[in-house]
Amino acid sequence: MYRVSVYVTPKAGVVDPQGAVVERALPALGHSGVHNIRVGRYITLEVEGDDAGKVSADVDDMCRRLLANPIIEDYRFDVLPVGTAAGEGT
Amino acid sequence: MYRVSVYVTPKAGVVDPQGAVVERALPALGHSGVHNIRVGRYITLEVEGDDAGKVSADVDDMCRRLLANPIIEDYRFDVLPVGTAAGEGT
Repeated sequence: MYRVSVYVTPKAGVVDPQGAVVERALPALGHSGVHNIRVGRYITLEVEGDDAGKVSADVDDMCRRLLANPIIEDYRFDVLPVGTAAGEGT
Repeated sequence: MYRVSVYVTPKAGVVDPQGAVVERALPALGHSGVHNIRVGRYITLEVEGDDAGKVSADVDDMCRRLLANPIIEDYRFDVLPVGTAAGEGT
């Protein structure tokens, strides 16, 4: 079992409306001096298997086909084994 | 200047419709054995200042009041200094 964290971000140069809205809202809350706000997605999942290489290849396929839009978004992910020593699966 | 990464996730026990949709879609793409999919937000921003403690307090306030909904979401964040040595601000 592997625990995977996927980070999806708008590509540099792509307009990010959510980030723009946050950037405009912050001064009204008393926070000035905040720039370059980009809002992406943070996806966590658990993948069965015992081969980290295969899990990484599978997750890359999931990212390209479902979790991210590769035309306008970048993605990266971490793959960490869980539950191998202590038998904790959750 | 500090570069901040904010991770917002649905609280444990809170229904996550996006995660459920992804979990139902993956078998059709040939990916079985994937569980506990949770979809949150990954927000990056740059904050002016030279006091990491103050920046952390400011970001915590932004999270509670704008970036996350503390009733149904958890958040955590990293604060990393940028541009202090090489003068790169972007």
